[in-house]
Amino acid sequence: MKILLIGASGTIGSAVKAELAQRHEVISIGRTSGDFQVDISDSNSIRKLFEQTGKFDALICAAGSVNFVPLADMNDSDFELGLRDKLMGQVNLLLIGREYANDGASFTFTSGILNRDPIRTGASAALVNGALDAFVKAAAIELPRGLRINSVSPTVLLEAMGSYAPYFRGYKPAPAADVALAYAKSVEGLQTGQTFIVG
Amino acid sequence: MKILLIGASGTIGSAVKAELAQRHEVISIGRTSGDFQVDISDSNSIRKLFEQTGKFDALICAAGSVNFVPLADMNDSDFELGLRDKLMGQVNLLLIGREYANDGASFTFTSGILNRDPIRTGASAALVNGALDAFVKAAAIELPRGLRINSVSPTVLLEAMGSYAPYFRGYKPAPAADVALAYAKSVEGLQTGQTFIVG
Repeated sequence: MKILLIGASGTIGSAVKAELAQRHEVISIGRTSGDFQVDISDSNSIRKLFEQTGKFDALICAAGSVNFVPLADMNDSDFELGLRDKLMGQVNLLLIGREYANDGASFTFTSGILNRDPIRTGASAALVNGALDAFVKAAAIELPRGLRINSVSPTVLLEAMGSYAPYFRGYKPAPAADVALAYAKSVEGLQTGQTFIVG
Repeated sequence: MKILLIGASGTIGSAVKAELAQRHEVISIGRTSGDFQVDISDSNSIRKLFEQTGKFDALICAAGSVNFVPLADMNDSDFELGLRDKLMGQVNLLLIGREYANDGASFTFTSGILNRDPIRTGASAALVNGALDAFVKAAAIELPRGLRINSVSPTVLLEAMGSYAPYFRGYKPAPAADVALAYAKSVEGLQTGQTFIVG
């Protein structure tokens, strides 16, 4: 399979690459690094990416930004980044990318634990993750040509606990290599419309 | 209690008013009808509403628009209405309205069944509903002064089946009066961070 991996240099992306590159051609894509670059918050940048990569069999997005702000300090502008980048960025990867997807291709997006198990400052992240998991479930039933779509919803990463631990007290972290397995299940299995929870 | 009811003239709003006006002061608010008017997609309009209503003990929003479009025909602009109106409109009712909420006041928002049980053309509605249910869960843990927040997620309404039936074949509709009970539970009970599913 030809797999487009957005966020390839991140903690999850690196682990996904290590897992899938054993069996497939993995194209590394980042905001500034990798074989190709994309800003997922910009539809034109997404379109340009696919013109460069051509057709593919699987797309994985392990990228997406949201703001973490105490609810008491939030106004609607604090939600903009998450809506434009992590949420609509990934939605647009499907809406635009489907034109470049081979029959039976899969889209695997990244949500996260915070809509299931919220933390302080996590209201925007929770909103975005809930939206993504719901979108995946709804979009799956309307996709043609055997196209599939799933999300992976990981808990906090073991590798990130150095900086994230104060925000995730009591959470059991998962190693990125375990999280990577969920992406492999999505890409190499046949399920669609699912959210694969890790941790 | 002084209850602000946005969407008071709608099918759900009318039933909620009939249920709650028996025991409370219910202020009817609509886009063009009611005691006061508001466009929830406009922060300035929301702020102006609260300047007119003053302090309150409960806010219910039974309003919010999304586009229904076949996924094959959607691009990102088809998601804008749902993001701006049903989603961020309700989020902004909390972010702005909390300044006017008495201690222990509740916010009750409306999501819907489509993130749990999707239909054709429902991708934007599913995304918005999933976002709302997640936001409510996350925001609840950060609210001060005993403020509460819940969502009600109803199935299709019996009263709407005249026009909606073709889109909801096989769905068991709920009478608006049954849906109204969930709003009463949210307003008159003590739960917070919950999504009350009806049907």
